[in-house]
Amino acid sequence: MSPDRLDAQLAFLLEIDRLKLIERRSFVTDASRRENSAEHSWHLAMLAMVLSEYAGDDVDMGRVIAMVLVHDIVEVDAGDVFVYADAGAHAAKAELERIAADRIFALLPDDQEPVFRALWEEYEECTTETARFAMALDRLQPLLLNVASGGATWREHGITADRVLERNAPIGDGAPALWARATAIIRDAVERGIVDPE
Amino acid sequence: MSPDRLDAQLAFLLEIDRLKLIERRSFVTDASRRENSAEHSWHLAMLAMVLSEYAGDDVDMGRVIAMVLVHDIVEVDAGDVFVYADAGAHAAKAELERIAADRIFALLPDDQEPVFRALWEEYEECTTETARFAMALDRLQPLLLNVASGGATWREHGITADRVLERNAPIGDGAPALWARATAIIRDAVERGIVDPE
Repeated sequence: MSPDRLDAQLAFLLEIDRLKLIERRSFVTDASRRENSAEHSWHLAMLAMVLSEYAGDDVDMGRVIAMVLVHDIVEVDAGDVFVYADAGAHAAKAELERIAADRIFALLPDDQEPVFRALWEEYEECTTETARFAMALDRLQPLLLNVASGGATWREHGITADRVLERNAPIGDGAPALWARATAIIRDAVERGIVDPE
Repeated sequence: MSPDRLDAQLAFLLEIDRLKLIERRSFVTDASRRENSAEHSWHLAMLAMVLSEYAGDDVDMGRVIAMVLVHDIVEVDAGDVFVYADAGAHAAKAELERIAADRIFALLPDDQEPVFRALWEEYEECTTETARFAMALDRLQPLLLNVASGGATWREHGITADRVLERNAPIGDGAPALWARATAIIRDAVERGIVDPE
């Protein structure tokens, strides 16, 4: 190995440490504080490991895990955008994230940059079965946290069950069995008064 | 899938969410707060992905990633013990962690419990090349954070460079090239006054 190569790798690894300071809207299960994007990424990787049997045959599970670990790194520069934000906010986010990806993945050695960037791009484009399963986990996890923490985020932003169903429908594209369960969880949350129906 | 099976999987995934509340001694790079064990696990998985070329031929990198994601889960019950704590604290920790593993992995369906428990046990026993590489990353990461945050944890506990070298020697067992760099980083930290020599 050349010292320069390892220097570049360590610089990248220290730069992405800042993902621990990016706050999401979701609360951790005991509702004591909001979740950050680094621990969220860990949690998604654990969902991938535990729920792998609900993925289709064409899903590469090792790549799902790599993808969820990497998918939020651009937030180091671009921040997190709430899934229920309007279309304008999501479009602005897409441009900021592309600029962030240009800068952050370029910290890696030349041969590693395209490898890591490709994981992020595949997730964003979401046209493969592997990316669709990763995306399904990324929608399911905050839904689980939100119900566990008593619907704090939904209430805070006046989000109703019909919007929860609409915004989380991608779970059904990537993992139909998990979407069946998610819709049951949302219906149950309405019955328990955790989220308003509409 | 049976609903009971998915119930068990989701219960496990919500239980381990509490790893986000387990505080470690290390500070995040900007030293604004201590790191928690969930985001630490994410960071280790990123080290594994970026630094895989420094692993020996017998190391299963997919298993390293799974292992570092799972290795701290027992802290949900047992808490974190500082790597520089005395032998008594480490022995007490080992027993608490075994009890925690019995409880937490048993939340999973019967066929998944031994799979996840085996990852944790292999890491703890540290007799395979795969576990030794995972352990090397688990020592290297706090060392990097500590230097980046100006040696805050070392100063707080009066840890000197000779103890840092002694406690982190397992990096050399799992990843000789990374240990060569780590010793250079420690020597440089002494020169810069970040850590006292002895």
